[in-house]
Amino acid sequence: MKVGFIGLGTMGKPMAANLIKAGFSLKVWNRSQAPVQDLVALGAEAAKGPGDFAEVDVLASMLSDDATVQSVVVDGGAQASLKAGAIHLNMATISLALAQSLAASHQQQGIGYVAAPVLGRVNVAEAGMLNILAAGQGEHLAKVAPLLDAMGQKTWHFGDQPAQANVVKLAANFCLASAIETMGEASALVQAHGGSGSGFIQMLTSTLFAAPAYQNYGAMIAEQRYQPAGFKLSLGLKDVRLALEAGEAGQVPMPFASTMKDNFLDAMAQGDGDLDWAALAKVAARRAGLG
Amino acid sequence: MKVGFIGLGTMGKPMAANLIKAGFSLKVWNRSQAPVQDLVALGAEAAKGPGDFAEVDVLASMLSDDATVQSVVVDGGAQASLKAGAIHLNMATISLALAQSLAASHQQQGIGYVAAPVLGRVNVAEAGMLNILAAGQGEHLAKVAPLLDAMGQKTWHFGDQPAQANVVKLAANFCLASAIETMGEASALVQAHGGSGSGFIQMLTSTLFAAPAYQNYGAMIAEQRYQPAGFKLSLGLKDVRLALEAGEAGQVPMPFASTMKDNFLDAMAQGDGDLDWAALAKVAARRAGLG
Amino acid sequence: MKVGFIGLGTMGKPMAANLIKAGFSLKVWNRSQAPVQDLVALGAEAAKGPGDFAEVDVLASMLSDDATVQSVVVDGGAQASLKAGAIHLNMATISLALAQSLAASHQQQGIGYVAAPVLGRVNVAEAGMLNILAAGQGEHLAKVAPLLDAMGQKTWHFGDQPAQANVVKLAANFCLASAIETMGEASALVQAHGGSGSGFIQMLTSTLFAAPAYQNYGAMIAEQRYQPAGFKLSLGLKDVRLALEAGEAGQVPMPFASTMKDNFLDAMAQGDGDLDWAALAKVAARRAGLG
Amino acid sequence: MKVGFIGLGTMGKPMAANLIKAGFSLKVWNRSQAPVQDLVALGAEAAKGPGDFAEVDVLASMLSDDATVQSVVVDGGAQASLKAGAIHLNMATISLALAQSLAASHQQQGIGYVAAPVLGRVNVAEAGMLNILAAGQGEHLAKVAPLLDAMGQKTWHFGDQPAQANVVKLAANFCLASAIETMGEASALVQAHGGSGSGFIQMLTSTLFAAPAYQNYGAMIAEQRYQPAGFKLSLGLKDVRLALEAGEAGQVPMPFASTMKDNFLDAMAQGDGDLDWAALAKVAARRAGLG
Repeated sequence: MKVGFIGLGTMGKPMAANLIKAGFSLKVWNRSQAPVQDLVALGAEAAKGPGDFAEVDVLASMLSDDATVQSVVVDGGAQASLKAGAIHLNMATISLALAQSLAASHQQQGIGYVAAPVLGRVNVAEAGMLNILAAGQGEHLAKVAPLLDAMGQKTWHFGDQPAQANVVKLAANFCLASAIETMGEASALVQAHGGSGSGFIQMLTSTLFAAPAYQNYGAMIAEQRYQPAGFKLSLGLKDVRLALEAGEAGQVPMPFASTMKDNFLDAMAQGDGDLDWAALAKVAARRAGLG
Repeated sequence: MKVGFIGLGTMGKPMAANLIKAGFSLKVWNRSQAPVQDLVALGAEAAKGPGDFAEVDVLASMLSDDATVQSVVVDGGAQASLKAGAIHLNMATISLALAQSLAASHQQQGIGYVAAPVLGRVNVAEAGMLNILAAGQGEHLAKVAPLLDAMGQKTWHFGDQPAQANVVKLAANFCLASAIETMGEASALVQAHGGSGSGFIQMLTSTLFAAPAYQNYGAMIAEQRYQPAGFKLSLGLKDVRLALEAGEAGQVPMPFASTMKDNFLDAMAQGDGDLDWAALAKVAARRAGLG
Repeated sequence: MKVGFIGLGTMGKPMAANLIKAGFSLKVWNRSQAPVQDLVALGAEAAKGPGDFAEVDVLASMLSDDATVQSVVVDGGAQASLKAGAIHLNMATISLALAQSLAASHQQQGIGYVAAPVLGRVNVAEAGMLNILAAGQGEHLAKVAPLLDAMGQKTWHFGDQPAQANVVKLAANFCLASAIETMGEASALVQAHGGSGSGFIQMLTSTLFAAPAYQNYGAMIAEQRYQPAGFKLSLGLKDVRLALEAGEAGQVPMPFASTMKDNFLDAMAQGDGDLDWAALAKVAARRAGLG
Repeated sequence: MKVGFIGLGTMGKPMAANLIKAGFSLKVWNRSQAPVQDLVALGAEAAKGPGDFAEVDVLASMLSDDATVQSVVVDGGAQASLKAGAIHLNMATISLALAQSLAASHQQQGIGYVAAPVLGRVNVAEAGMLNILAAGQGEHLAKVAPLLDAMGQKTWHFGDQPAQANVVKLAANFCLASAIETMGEASALVQAHGGSGSGFIQMLTSTLFAAPAYQNYGAMIAEQRYQPAGFKLSLGLKDVRLALEAGEAGQVPMPFASTMKDNFLDAMAQGDGDLDWAALAKVAARRAGLG
């Protein structure tokens, strides 16, 4: 199987490297050239441009947002270059609207389309231990399964409409943001009464909430350590907005998401957009007159 | 050390039993007599009334709410019966206002007061594996430590003002409610787009949110199994209200708690007050036109 | 008809004066003596204490809040001093719970009880132009009607349960707070895009929202003129809390009220509790990074 | 002055007719032909298409939403057909993003652009009594002033950036929605305690809230009369979303708007999208278990 890979950022590069390690023949493209050279050193072939994937059976892409997907995959010719019967494996976190539009346009073009956004940060991607949220037609999922197995510890299936995987990804990110906001409000409550926010979070994340999401963000909140940003607050705002847009499309009131969007905007307005999105907890503290 | 124990409900009875097993000499009282007899059979002495604890060094109480604490401990004479130097170990989940009032009145009376609400349900209490959230003066905490060790797996200290432990307990219950609401909204989003709510929750609670709180309530939401109630929705409403009252006392805006109180009221108005509080998730589903 | 009047504050004093002007024989009591002397100069008799109203046919009271009503009317003996068949006309803004409790205790004592909170500030009270929100039994309402006519421009009837008038008063104050919050958010939106908040409010309150509530508070918001306080923000918080408590008693979700309580707490935490409650609009502005 | 007019719907047609009555020479276009013929009967000239406005000095347009403006003005060639120095007077309620984009593209083309959305419904438009919210460069505003005077009772100026008028229009519509939600929650509170919702609204809109917005929508809520729709709930959702988008662009948290969007979605999910947007009040009632 000949595989293409577009988007060699902090996530895409280790994911592509894991494909090479697993023995796949890889052709890669990236806007900047440095990561391309790194992968060529590992055995990949460099594409001449985003439209140079006519021979691949599967084109994986890991681009940062809707605008980049639009400019590279659609306007840049990546999709158009694919041969009949090829599959585009889109692993980016994108909006429901774009996901639905891409699913339709790929079908019209006679090529497969699988959405497979991932859970996990850079170190998890490097270890090939991502959790992968996949949706698409059964035969397409079967074809890309070996690739997903090389990049992740487990592939979760969420339906035959590709966009369903994107909704699940947005729902999962909403849950992460919600965990941050929850700890932010709870810590502020404890601190306002003279208690230790970090002591509270230590207890919480050692007992009922002993899970990676709470432990990771809880430690940041307890230490008020919001730099360097693992995931910027401005991107957190974007993801919550995407969840709300998906909610609106499905007529789903999401009051927690709405509350968080307002709090993210508050944080942005105070100049905290470049901090880690765990800094959402600063809003609760500031509004309570703490810190 | 002579120990008294008041309140032998579903939680209090196994907690008292664990004290007996650990070798403490116990004198017990309960409004209804059946659990008293069960503990007498284990070796406890039956008190003649709530005011019959003049000889104990520590009086533990595990009563259901503010009104019961007021009627038994204050009006019923339990507190007044204690000798100088005795300690009242109050393990109930009560309001910040009552906690502060009790701390003051015990001090005035010249007796110790430790607040030690617990995390864990009946089976955890039976196993002596509770997490205990304690606050009070150091000497008082030291004196009750052997009792707490017999009832729990770990005692967490949250300050020298007893009410601080109550705030932490309310903050923890707020986090639990928030986890329920979060999964309710996220599931509704996934389902509105044709996905499987239970598949989503299965994934979520196996990965980033693999913690008891999410797994326990996630399973109930996924299966829409809200009876029998482990903890009634009407009690969940009460605890969120207590968290909001503590927030108001400390001038802490808690928009998640406010949102949930409205949703709990919605559930109550639809007649769901006797379901498990995980049925808060029904509100998100119904508002989205699902099920 | 012999009339008593308790509570000669900024509202009560002009209301009592209007009763004297209308020819009623008045006996008055107030915690501080200065306003008593002013009314004696107008022809009133001074009571010896809050319990010195045995001969009156109607006892009107205009006290500031639940605690004062409790301490003067209940604990202070005013209610107990009334003769069989007398009517207590309670014009204070109090909680639903206290209103219900007073209605029950008066009935038990064999005396009438009418709740008649008012709309209007001091200048309106002086002019005898209050709008009066009344509830109680028909015969009681009929008996106090001449008094209400002397104090207000119109009496609105809201049911035969006295507490219903209190609920209407809380609902009306909720609407006022909501108008403030609405203008605060809308002004922030306009200003954030370089527009004039005051120009916007000028237009708004000259057209679709040309009503006293919007014009009064709109002008304060436009000019950011929050001192001296006509009605303190801390009291606004209290009234919104009372509305929420009434909502909880009736199982009515009130998300606007919940949002405002959080915003009031935010304002309190920033030290704005003594400003006019129109300063709720500062919260929206500050959160948007304005001013 | 030669004037063009595009968009002869329920609002546009009487507005155009008022221009003719005021003596302006009018050339008109509409997607459907019936209103064109009506205006030709009044003396207007029929354009051959949306791109047939090369000779006009001012082209007024009153189209229903972003998509229609895009398809007629941009894609349909209306804007492109204008001669150098002409002015496009866009009176539609559109998004901030489209407003900014149109301002930029008109400037680039060397033609003027004035945004002038209106307040008022059909009968107000017919009477030439609209309130017009205008923004743009001073010379452009001066040139279109006679047209605006013929269509409205007053023109309010909101800055030299055309989009500022659109923000003001979105802010005003947000205030209307907020008035509906406020009355909905307050009525539910009163009714839940056995009071009369209509009696409450009658009092409210006769006193503190005696303004057109409250009286108009208050009557509909009191009578639960949501058909025929003067303005559909689905369009209300759209306008609140546009306000939120403008808020996000300006980093303005708008918790009331967020709450309303969720409530609008609730109403949509229950099938009430075609009712008048005053039916937002049904959500508060239903959530409280009323009606």
